[in-house]
Amino acid sequence: MHRVVVVGAGFAGLSAARSLIGRPVEVTIVDQRNFHTFQPLLYEVATAGLESGDVAYPIRVIFGKAQNVTYRFATATGVDWGRGDVLLAGTRPLPFDSLILASGATAAFFGIPGAAEHSFPLYTLTDARRLRDHVLRRLEDVDAHPEAEARGALTFVVVGGGPTGVEVAGALAELLDVAVRHDGFGFARRSGRVVLVDALDRLLTPFRESAASYAAATLAGRGVELMLGHVVRTVTGEGVELEDGTVIPTRTVVWAGGVTVERTVVSDIGAETGPNGRLAVRPDLSLVDHEDAYAVGDAGAVPWGPEEPGRVCPQVAQVAIQSGAHAARQVLRRLAGEATEPFRYADKGIMATIGRRAAIAQFPGGRVVRGTLGWLAWLGLHLVYLIGFRNKVVVLVNWSWRYLSWGSGPRIIVNDRAEDRPTPLGPDDDPPL
Amino acid sequence: MHRVVVVGAGFAGLSAARSLIGRPVEVTIVDQRNFHTFQPLLYEVATAGLESGDVAYPIRVIFGKAQNVTYRFATATGVDWGRGDVLLAGTRPLPFDSLILASGATAAFFGIPGAAEHSFPLYTLTDARRLRDHVLRRLEDVDAHPEAEARGALTFVVVGGGPTGVEVAGALAELLDVAVRHDGFGFARRSGRVVLVDALDRLLTPFRESAASYAAATLAGRGVELMLGHVVRTVTGEGVELEDGTVIPTRTVVWAGGVTVERTVVSDIGAETGPNGRLAVRPDLSLVDHEDAYAVGDAGAVPWGPEEPGRVCPQVAQVAIQSGAHAARQVLRRLAGEATEPFRYADKGIMATIGRRAAIAQFPGGRVVRGTLGWLAWLGLHLVYLIGFRNKVVVLVNWSWRYLSWGSGPRIIVNDRAEDRPTPLGPDDDPPL
Repeated sequence: MHRVVVVGAGFAGLSAARSLIGRPVEVTIVDQRNFHTFQPLLYEVATAGLESGDVAYPIRVIFGKAQNVTYRFATATGVDWGRGDVLLAGTRPLPFDSLILASGATAAFFGIPGAAEHSFPLYTLTDARRLRDHVLRRLEDVDAHPEAEARGALTFVVVGGGPTGVEVAGALAELLDVAVRHDGFGFARRSGRVVLVDALDRLLTPFRESAASYAAATLAGRGVELMLGHVVRTVTGEGVELEDGTVIPTRTVVWAGGVTVERTVVSDIGAETGPNGRLAVRPDLSLVDHEDAYAVGDAGAVPWGPEEPGRVCPQVAQVAIQSGAHAARQVLRRLAGEATEPFRYADKGIMATIGRRAAIAQFPGGRVVRGTLGWLAWLGLHLVYLIGFRNKVVVLVNWSWRYLSWGSGPRIIVNDRAEDRPTPLGPDDDPPL
Repeated sequence: MHRVVVVGAGFAGLSAARSLIGRPVEVTIVDQRNFHTFQPLLYEVATAGLESGDVAYPIRVIFGKAQNVTYRFATATGVDWGRGDVLLAGTRPLPFDSLILASGATAAFFGIPGAAEHSFPLYTLTDARRLRDHVLRRLEDVDAHPEAEARGALTFVVVGGGPTGVEVAGALAELLDVAVRHDGFGFARRSGRVVLVDALDRLLTPFRESAASYAAATLAGRGVELMLGHVVRTVTGEGVELEDGTVIPTRTVVWAGGVTVERTVVSDIGAETGPNGRLAVRPDLSLVDHEDAYAVGDAGAVPWGPEEPGRVCPQVAQVAIQSGAHAARQVLRRLAGEATEPFRYADKGIMATIGRRAAIAQFPGGRVVRGTLGWLAWLGLHLVYLIGFRNKVVVLVNWSWRYLSWGSGPRIIVNDRAEDRPTPLGPDDDPPL
């Protein structure tokens, strides 16, 4: 039986694997995490609006009924093209006949000093929980030690004015609102600052100008300070320095400044890389030097389509889903002795949320829907794509409860560490400060 | 205003604080975690039946509307009786006029070599998640490396035949059932072993013999092996050795063998300790040498009542809830210049679950209700005491879904560590094996 290995269980990998259910192939999905992460909602976990489990779904449960799809809990580290193996960390390699690389993206720091060490990116569930714990600890810090406010403990800087940055900034502002109104913290709302920084002069570059203005106005109305046209020079543990010399004292820098390809597998592959480290592919998404291997989703330089050669798709969920399915179909075509077909992206539009009852949906052709209607569309679409019926129900309950009552939300600090034995936090442990 | 400090936000601490809402006192709750943990359901988190957030509730949200109750995120390390301060790790002390110690219990290892280092207790949310991750990793281990089975990777030993041990053992057996049936693991159900070990000859000593027999029969019917009348001699990373020389190869030993008082605050207090390290108290629950301080819940040697001097209450949730409220009332009585009253435990019965649709409820007088009826009572009672409406709804949804469909459950491994930057697990990280 023809063996297909899918590296990565994000949108692209899952989409590829799902397209191969019941087909005459043996599929093995490899992912270093045993669950699929619904990345669009990570900012909700990061701001204590949803819990980890609401945006994570075990891969084994997704494919539990699929007889020809299995899962392997391992970290892919490279490919041995000669032997036709995917190399795995700490265990024997995984042989393949066809390979679909969907290893995704991670934060791009652009060489900015201190960014990698001190900022908080938002690409994995672990990232989201780290950020949430950190933000909640800062609130506790200032509550117990008001002098910490001067050190910027209540200032939250978000770097990047794209959809992710806008979503996080809006959600952080909401978290401060709720914390002050419902959680008995001693500081005033105005003591908390959320600052959104971007090098460009406007937010949300994939969107039309009107959408960007709406987002800017809405964020400003929620108390988010916009510093557009500012470049970040350095990030330290105490603050962020801009190119014009401005220093913003802060203990929290959220990095939404851009993505680059997750390098562990990709770097080792020895395959040609295109823009931003994305694997160069042919029109049918196969690798230039290996026609039985495909790169999809964020990991590949997915072409827009044969009508616009040279144009590359953005690294977004819809591209991942469509390219993953396309690669799977090409595997089947080749298996049947047929010629492959070029990928053609079906642009259905883009969306971003700015917070409670405020979102923007922009359709091809330029029509923009915003406000509560846009937000309902955003909510609905996410519920459709969120995997797992139980997850859908729970998220709906969580959101309904929150937007009706405003009060509750999992604002818990779960200080998990491997060495966390059943002893209380002592002076040597991660202190409350 | 009279200042009351409550150390600990478990059942006892919350109960005390709740009894003081709106009273002429200023209450500060101190807990090293910013959430209350619903301990009775930790075994569900440990076996991937519920998620962390379902059994955790932020303390600030619980008391958000209470004007006279505030929360302090800190670790209490002792008491300076001379100055009337609760000492906190890494920050300035907290002055009090009345003190309610509700610092709870932790695992008791009875000096058994290796138990503290190698076993998995179940008292905190961190404990539960560690165990869950560990169990799921063992399943992945054997799935990828069948030879690991011989090393006991699929054997799960539970030490302790009380309610906690019985609940965990039953839930582990169910997890194995589900994993094999729904998750596409390659091993057979019979390869998985759940072994429950206890030094006594019967399970569930607080219950009547008939209840214990029912539990034993039910567990056996689910595939749990019972090794009663066996004492654990040592625990290692490879297995467990019993006093009669029997060695059970295993990578997972769950410690439900007994509780002792959480020592960090208690040891430092310099107050008389009674049985099992529990703080000795007078009939009204005040400390022997400090009449403005009380010990409640698992931390105190809570007396049964004046009718049975010398009899001490068990360390269970109902005792914690009642003793916490009682101590709070004594604080108010003394404040009003009235004499205090002795504590009198109102025994409403005990319960334990053995798994899907099987639980035991035993009422004072000895009547036992078991099976589905007992299970519904158990479920209902837990929903009543679970804090947070959203949590109740979510848990109900989770349970309903699970018991109807059997399939889903948050069987995710969240390998959170402080040093978990956005890089994939490499050979140096906690390996999948």
